[in-house]
Amino acid sequence: MATLKDVAKEAGLSVGTVSRVLNNRGYISDETRDNVKRAMARLNYQPNEVARSLSKQNSNTIGVIIPSIEHPYFAKVLSCLEQAAHEQGYKLLLFCSRGETSREDEYIKACRSNRVAALILCTGSVRTSRMRNLGFPLITYERFINTGDAGVECDNYEGGRFAARELIQAGCRKLVCLRAIQEVSLPADSRKDGFLDECRDSGVDAYDYSFPPENLDDMEYRDLIRKFLDACPEADGVFAGSDVIAAQVLQVCKQRGIRVPQDLKVVGYDDVLLSQMTTPDITTIHQPVREMAEACVDIVRRSAEGESLPSRTTFHVSLIRRGSTAVG
Amino acid sequence: MATLKDVAKEAGLSVGTVSRVLNNRGYISDETRDNVKRAMARLNYQPNEVARSLSKQNSNTIGVIIPSIEHPYFAKVLSCLEQAAHEQGYKLLLFCSRGETSREDEYIKACRSNRVAALILCTGSVRTSRMRNLGFPLITYERFINTGDAGVECDNYEGGRFAARELIQAGCRKLVCLRAIQEVSLPADSRKDGFLDECRDSGVDAYDYSFPPENLDDMEYRDLIRKFLDACPEADGVFAGSDVIAAQVLQVCKQRGIRVPQDLKVVGYDDVLLSQMTTPDITTIHQPVREMAEACVDIVRRSAEGESLPSRTTFHVSLIRRGSTAVG
Repeated sequence: MATLKDVAKEAGLSVGTVSRVLNNRGYISDETRDNVKRAMARLNYQPNEVARSLSKQNSNTIGVIIPSIEHPYFAKVLSCLEQAAHEQGYKLLLFCSRGETSREDEYIKACRSNRVAALILCTGSVRTSRMRNLGFPLITYERFINTGDAGVECDNYEGGRFAARELIQAGCRKLVCLRAIQEVSLPADSRKDGFLDECRDSGVDAYDYSFPPENLDDMEYRDLIRKFLDACPEADGVFAGSDVIAAQVLQVCKQRGIRVPQDLKVVGYDDVLLSQMTTPDITTIHQPVREMAEACVDIVRRSAEGESLPSRTTFHVSLIRRGSTAVG
Repeated sequence: MATLKDVAKEAGLSVGTVSRVLNNRGYISDETRDNVKRAMARLNYQPNEVARSLSKQNSNTIGVIIPSIEHPYFAKVLSCLEQAAHEQGYKLLLFCSRGETSREDEYIKACRSNRVAALILCTGSVRTSRMRNLGFPLITYERFINTGDAGVECDNYEGGRFAARELIQAGCRKLVCLRAIQEVSLPADSRKDGFLDECRDSGVDAYDYSFPPENLDDMEYRDLIRKFLDACPEADGVFAGSDVIAAQVLQVCKQRGIRVPQDLKVVGYDDVLLSQMTTPDITTIHQPVREMAEACVDIVRRSAEGESLPSRTTFHVSLIRRGSTAVG
């Protein structure tokens, strides 16, 4: 049986375009429409109408559960997921869990009753027991679980190594990994491993200083950062778990007369817009969020076509050098 | 005929709770469930199952079209809409228009084919001709149009007055309203009117300096701000159209050696988290986004119950004083 992908290849068009022709969505020129129809005829392609009618009008709806919308990292993730979904002919049903497990359970139920094509789960706190036998594919974003059909993440370990290397090259000798821990183990935890390994390999002192589990919707770290600075006055380089934490490190340092980057150098994580809006702006690890979001939606589409799925897709990260690690 | 609201009143519970019992969503204690059932019996309340089945499983889905997800103001709006929808038993179908009119047309079509309960429109660029005869209520958020069933906005004029008063009280005498204009007229335009009126009433010089129409998803204003500072070197007080613009004013000033608040005082608009994450932090006009989002969802619910709707609901704003207007 020819798949949508075969038709796209035959017609020399993107899968998204062919999908739009099939679903009669968006503006399609007559020429493109004819082109797709000819390709379908040549390949004897039959859209799976049974499956489509079984799942009713929601077959092109993807459920997304996200822990926060206001947190700039998750706002970026959601924005990229919406863009990727649009390009591939899907709609998003949005659920924000705000760290409440009971709400996550309810949202998973809503996804079932709404016959979503798939669920993209961006939150770490859903119990894995809820993940089995959902009746639709489960794609986890920055969370690897055994019961998930497919996980998409960035190379957090590499990110930690890059951050340590940057701080060491900038002359720092007392490094701290400053992060919020979560109640469950997450791919993001490997940032710390990469950071500490790089420091050890370079013979530089490094500490792991962690905040209690965070409410991602709250984003208030200033008191915790003050305690950290009291506890580690000798630190000259900080790797913050997110740009949001890094931005607040800059604020607390300013209040205390600690100069960034002269007295303390700072590297963030995520590369959200906030990292460009502070003074100094923040050196950070760029997560390829757009590519990661596209991979998630691509997996949904491939799953719908019965293709076998990669259980884990990991993307390289990169260092973006800005003012918070400037030398001299 | 008794309405859901009558049942809620009779049972002494919120409409959201009664709605959950009816729709069997979320955790509800046996006691609450019994309470609701007794109230329904007393009032002879009959859920409108015909309407429900006509509109199928999507009767509790609200479409949201938003111009940007990453922009911190719209991230906050979306977060509050999701929360309000959750509390009142609705789900959100999310569409991000990114300033593309063709995409907005497509999204409105998708809302129709998905039989949404209502559409909340947070973008200014949809052509009003598309707004007629949708078949579902249209609620406009910070956009008043004659064809919309109900508009929800903040008192932008009052916000402009507050901003001018704050700058004048802080000693500024050369004021500028710095804002991005849009291709269509928006409620936000009244901020400028309130600002200029307050300055005129106080006998203080004020200019309106506007940037070309903005792409809300882009959020890069620094070159425009440099040009503004070149053009208005005598300005000692700036009212920025958003906290995002205000944050970038701080950055450009820092680069140029202009001290905020000593040389130039700055007031933003929106009161998003970013306004607390800069140094100095930003005095701003607080929009009651949570209340505005709740009003939107409330209108959806009341519309579903056949109640008459307020054509326009305007919320007071308030000034949040922070470091960017500090005196001395």
